[in-house]
Amino acid sequence: MQTIRIDDPQDERVSAFLDIRERDLVGRQGRFVAEGKVVLDVLTATRRFEVESVLVLENRLAGVRPIVERLPQSVPVYVVSAEVMDRIAGFHMHRGILAIGRRGELPGAAELVATLPREALVAVLVGISNHDNVGSIFRNAAAFGADAVLLDRTSCDPLYRKAIRVSVGAALKVPFALFDDAAGLADMLDTRGFTQFALSPRGKTDIRDARCDGPLALYLGTEGEGLPQALLERLQTARIAMAPGFDSLNVAAASAIALHAFARKAQQAGEG
Amino acid sequence: MQTIRIDDPQDERVSAFLDIRERDLVGRQGRFVAEGKVVLDVLTATRRFEVESVLVLENRLAGVRPIVERLPQSVPVYVVSAEVMDRIAGFHMHRGILAIGRRGELPGAAELVATLPREALVAVLVGISNHDNVGSIFRNAAAFGADAVLLDRTSCDPLYRKAIRVSVGAALKVPFALFDDAAGLADMLDTRGFTQFALSPRGKTDIRDARCDGPLALYLGTEGEGLPQALLERLQTARIAMAPGFDSLNVAAASAIALHAFARKAQQAGEG
Repeated sequence: MQTIRIDDPQDERVSAFLDIRERDLVGRQGRFVAEGKVVLDVLTATRRFEVESVLVLENRLAGVRPIVERLPQSVPVYVVSAEVMDRIAGFHMHRGILAIGRRGELPGAAELVATLPREALVAVLVGISNHDNVGSIFRNAAAFGADAVLLDRTSCDPLYRKAIRVSVGAALKVPFALFDDAAGLADMLDTRGFTQFALSPRGKTDIRDARCDGPLALYLGTEGEGLPQALLERLQTARIAMAPGFDSLNVAAASAIALHAFARKAQQAGEG
Repeated sequence: MQTIRIDDPQDERVSAFLDIRERDLVGRQGRFVAEGKVVLDVLTATRRFEVESVLVLENRLAGVRPIVERLPQSVPVYVVSAEVMDRIAGFHMHRGILAIGRRGELPGAAELVATLPREALVAVLVGISNHDNVGSIFRNAAAFGADAVLLDRTSCDPLYRKAIRVSVGAALKVPFALFDDAAGLADMLDTRGFTQFALSPRGKTDIRDARCDGPLALYLGTEGEGLPQALLERLQTARIAMAPGFDSLNVAAASAIALHAFARKAQQAGEG
């Protein structure tokens, strides 16, 4: 592990960590920020993404050493005092550890789907623009053994800092790809033998009765407008039965119930 | 509807709305703040809580009139410009409508349980101190027809502004009570014939196989430490099976799955 002491917040070597919040808004040219020990643990354990550098509080270094030591020797680990950390980040960074990752080339949706197992479980997100929801859905996808998440281009970037954090690192673990057009995606998944269910409050099949052999794609839309009508007409639809008078479920909660339901049938869930 | 124009942010009549965020931290002496149209809709429709006053942006008044008109004539509706609204609230209040409610007397846990139906479904929260999680659990409780939520005193106040907002008003709808001691509560619920399940990653029964006739209490603990060991030893335990290698589920997501599972058995959920 190559630790480098930094005392000047303006040091060029830590410029990628400067003003984290402001830079969330303008993007990072092929990079992302991972924060916190649990997220860094997933990042370094799964090795899906290359890590460019790490910034850690001096008094946290011992605690994160086993995580950071998984990285190649060539990755610099910048060590700072609490004051320098806060001045670099631009706010009080109590988490004490940050890393810059490289996005690399994202696969196309068809390319990713071609790599999946025969009993694949895939979540398809349409218009999920809220970072909390995308992060939570990734967390649920990891918890229930989904093999991939496919997102349309109006959905939030899974590598946005907050989405990664809310996902507890699952956004760095579960493979994902973007698609342009839901109808085109549905065609492609059809061709590959996927059963496709669109989740909707007015869906035809109760999720508890939905059956599926082979690969499955589960479509989730926004809470307000839901999935586009054309998609609901084209796919099988499933609903989560709710109590009368308050039929409002957060899309992340809906994803938990639906992924759990299909994880059961696809035997994806561990029985421990 | 008694509308009163306010032009001075310091006007005493709107003092209850002053500096909303700061006052979240110090409490409100028997009052709570409800914000946004959807939450106000629940507040005025359920009538569980008395409303003291309403503050609304002038250009939103027409849109919320049907909601506000449910209130007694005596409740003042203060109407303000966007600038005055922001200066009263202390930040940009894009939601445009706020109300002050009175907490009134909370029932004790035993008192509340005595009013519940024979097939009652009750969520019991132990140490859930995060506002988002408590709000989300209330939302799920409402969605799946839970009859009450019981919280220990280390759990977050359901009438905290953010918890109400995240619950989409469910915290104003689903009856709740506080309890001091989980062991004492479990005794009381035993006496009343409740089946009691504690949810835990190492629970004995898969939640999909958990059966229950009659009233049911579902215990939820924190994500990190989980429920106290003494409680896990005393109650039946249920688990949500997860994929190996990422057995991390947010407690609100867990509540969605478990309440949905038991809503099924108790036939609480609508079949529409």
